[in-house]
Amino acid sequence: MKNSVGRKLPDDLMKQLNYEGFKSTEIGKPQVQRVAPKVHVSTGDDKLVDSIEDVVKKTVKDGMTISFHHHFRNGDFVFNKVMRVIIDQGIKNLTLAPSSLTGVMNDIVIEAIKKGTITNITSSGMRGSLGDFVSHGGLKNPVIFRSHGNRARAIEHGDIKIDVAFLGVPNADKLGNANGMQGDAVFGSLGYALMDAQYADNVVLLTDNIMPYPNTPASIKQTQVDYVVKVDKVGDPDKIGSGATRFTKDPKELKIAAMVNDVIVHSPYFKDGFSFQTGSGGAALAVTRYLRQAMIDNQIKASFALGGITKPTTDLLEEGLVRRVMDVQDFDKGAAASMHTNPNQQEIDASWYADPDNKGAMVDQLDIVILSALEIDTDFNVNVMTGSDGVIRGAVGGHQDAATAKLTIISAPLVRGRIATVVPKVTTNVTPGDSVDVLVTEYGIAINPKRKDLQKAFANLPGVPVYTIEELQQMAEKKVGKPKPLEFTDRTVALVEYRDGSIIDAINEVKD
Amino acid sequence: MKNSVGRKLPDDLMKQLNYEGFKSTEIGKPQVQRVAPKVHVSTGDDKLVDSIEDVVKKTVKDGMTISFHHHFRNGDFVFNKVMRVIIDQGIKNLTLAPSSLTGVMNDIVIEAIKKGTITNITSSGMRGSLGDFVSHGGLKNPVIFRSHGNRARAIEHGDIKIDVAFLGVPNADKLGNANGMQGDAVFGSLGYALMDAQYADNVVLLTDNIMPYPNTPASIKQTQVDYVVKVDKVGDPDKIGSGATRFTKDPKELKIAAMVNDVIVHSPYFKDGFSFQTGSGGAALAVTRYLRQAMIDNQIKASFALGGITKPTTDLLEEGLVRRVMDVQDFDKGAAASMHTNPNQQEIDASWYADPDNKGAMVDQLDIVILSALEIDTDFNVNVMTGSDGVIRGAVGGHQDAATAKLTIISAPLVRGRIATVVPKVTTNVTPGDSVDVLVTEYGIAINPKRKDLQKAFANLPGVPVYTIEELQQMAEKKVGKPKPLEFTDRTVALVEYRDGSIIDAINEVKD
Repeated sequence: MKNSVGRKLPDDLMKQLNYEGFKSTEIGKPQVQRVAPKVHVSTGDDKLVDSIEDVVKKTVKDGMTISFHHHFRNGDFVFNKVMRVIIDQGIKNLTLAPSSLTGVMNDIVIEAIKKGTITNITSSGMRGSLGDFVSHGGLKNPVIFRSHGNRARAIEHGDIKIDVAFLGVPNADKLGNANGMQGDAVFGSLGYALMDAQYADNVVLLTDNIMPYPNTPASIKQTQVDYVVKVDKVGDPDKIGSGATRFTKDPKELKIAAMVNDVIVHSPYFKDGFSFQTGSGGAALAVTRYLRQAMIDNQIKASFALGGITKPTTDLLEEGLVRRVMDVQDFDKGAAASMHTNPNQQEIDASWYADPDNKGAMVDQLDIVILSALEIDTDFNVNVMTGSDGVIRGAVGGHQDAATAKLTIISAPLVRGRIATVVPKVTTNVTPGDSVDVLVTEYGIAINPKRKDLQKAFANLPGVPVYTIEELQQMAEKKVGKPKPLEFTDRTVALVEYRDGSIIDAINEVKD
Repeated sequence: MKNSVGRKLPDDLMKQLNYEGFKSTEIGKPQVQRVAPKVHVSTGDDKLVDSIEDVVKKTVKDGMTISFHHHFRNGDFVFNKVMRVIIDQGIKNLTLAPSSLTGVMNDIVIEAIKKGTITNITSSGMRGSLGDFVSHGGLKNPVIFRSHGNRARAIEHGDIKIDVAFLGVPNADKLGNANGMQGDAVFGSLGYALMDAQYADNVVLLTDNIMPYPNTPASIKQTQVDYVVKVDKVGDPDKIGSGATRFTKDPKELKIAAMVNDVIVHSPYFKDGFSFQTGSGGAALAVTRYLRQAMIDNQIKASFALGGITKPTTDLLEEGLVRRVMDVQDFDKGAAASMHTNPNQQEIDASWYADPDNKGAMVDQLDIVILSALEIDTDFNVNVMTGSDGVIRGAVGGHQDAATAKLTIISAPLVRGRIATVVPKVTTNVTPGDSVDVLVTEYGIAINPKRKDLQKAFANLPGVPVYTIEELQQMAEKKVGKPKPLEFTDRTVALVEYRDGSIIDAINEVKD
């Protein structure tokens, strides 16, 4: 079968896993029945456990679904500690359902797959050796990739039923009241982990910092937690977030950022009370800086900034240019520290951030978002999942979710080295072109033809050449040539869900 | 049948409603499956509704269960406005399931019962004309009385399935982000209402104060809310809480308070890091004042104060004598204002406060609680529900819940006017004597015989005469005589649940 964006999907697998093909970015107004966890009733007096070994013995059984969060990013010590014990105890056939997987987890996940400990994975993404391993057929069952909002939806629907959540936190009291803001390994918002804490049948906290009872603010509450394990160190503070938020000096990035800013400022959405999500990375930080100046010059203030938050964004909050920061994760220490001190920086869970099956998520109220792309094609479909070699090296993240904004800008260089970013057809379709409005490259912009209003608004901006997306694709091809078509086997190694749980694309095993 | 505290229960009704009799105050370690609401998916853009008429038409159907909170207490305008519309629209056979009922709701509830609009009620309590009406057989089906913690349990189990929750708030944005701390009709913690917001299939907010989007802190979140109705005024600020928290001058109350303080200070629990719940009312405030001095004198600080919170308690927080205030409701303006400004005053929902089927509620961690009594009998059973005439005039409140504390003190005068407080057998058993440790009256104290440790600790306190509970009962009887036995018909007008959902007592129609 093919879905509505023309991707061929594996019929047998679709039937077997009870999936439908992607139809539309419109969610509509369905009525959905949420699920709820089992609760092991206790007075809370016996939650402190001495060792990970003990808590794994008490909770994990063959065939279960276990989860982790990725707020520690590359500074994560928790995932490896717990997986080591699980592998060593000989547990088999687990489904691994973390909010995402970061590079430091790769080696042990591969080991766990090889030993039969892990047989299924659902994640936002994967990179490096693990992506390579999966793309070369290392895992028998297909990985299911889900956006952050879709993971929340899947948990709330019961599509992901977490048996045991192992959640690392920089502080917790003996009953499990915890937040991400105090201690050595702080990361700020616990946004993704809040889903696991609310919906898992067993919730295990791991911390290096037992606080006096009761510990507040309690982002995770004692009513959600079964066990608290004291460990040596939960993470490496220096690797959790980018320490400094340096302003890019790359002229290409600066040019793109300036053009993104021009597009924003001349859009119909740049007015008092507007909202935005800029994301992380050099260009995004530069956009935030340009945007700040434009807001000052035009005496415009934003109602809220959303998403993964950086210090330049919390600086806008301090300055009064942004009224609220709605914070599902913090990308650097500055943003994490700000959540601790500024009451206008509200911690939100992944459901509130982006679950489409909700009574209104933050992304539904978003005016402007800037997103990245590994590839974007002439139908404006975006790939943030597979590289030009067809190998998995990315993450859905909040990409599909935030693309629901009124103005979705893809910011990307036309080419990267000898590889085109703008292509005739994306290797993997992650975010359908229907939800993308403008592509900004260092050479100029392309506007989705369905947005006649934007075609008009951006027609004569000085320094912002407008091309058709086909023209940009041709420019890219002229620079780097036409690549040899990728070769894949017939075997599906991963399925990419759209945020509504339908399948937007399949990823096949690469042929070497 | 009789339950384990010897109360005769109506067999037919028990079977019909699938109830078991109360067995024990021990909750044990059951595994329970929680329930979850239906969600009407929406982007959140069409939540603002012009009129209560419209929103009632959209949501309420014959036979549904509707709910309200009682945080506005006697300043509540929301309940009457909504019930007026529901009655006038001719809706029938509703179950009314508010967190509690206050006096200002009585007239319209009686009208709704008479017109067939309301046919079932579950509440924490009822007073005045409504209690009288029910006690005289005005409602066909028995009222179900539940403690605050038990209401949370019942909602989380699905015993109470709320179809539509009408929740008044002093502020909300157009998507439903709301708190109890800003606006004209502030009441502080939304603790009880948070259960309804999380579990009702339809959540309607009513507010007189639409805030810029997004409104934070968001105690109730946009992800929980279906409709927001702008009304003239949600409440009368002057009647929401006791404005001033005056110190009692009643010598009897002062004497009891001083003795309560002596009992606390000489208990094994009065040590650094202890926790307490004092409640409201003149004597409670006096206890808090005495306790403050004792804490200073003994250089002892409390880890947390719990419960319905008053300004004298938040003053202790300001002074650093209490490390955290865990706040499910605020009894006065000072306490409500403090929640807005002091981050160490944590808002908690009714489940976290007291749901027994939890992974640890706050009451499970409580050292000392002071509770009141309409009657207490020689088995230390407490009645806070029916008067000496057998008529309903009280509320379970958090009484059963907090009585799980390590030291449960009942503070009550020996007699009130010509009525004994200490009696051979309580008219209605609400809190079983098994969970009560000490009775403090103005004449002296009685210690539950099972607490040999306390017998010893309080044996020789100057100014604190120790009696047996039978001696105190005899003293009371000597003062006011033996009352004529109450006469009831065979008809059950209300059932009182214990906090675990079993039946601790039945209340019968009074015979005039």
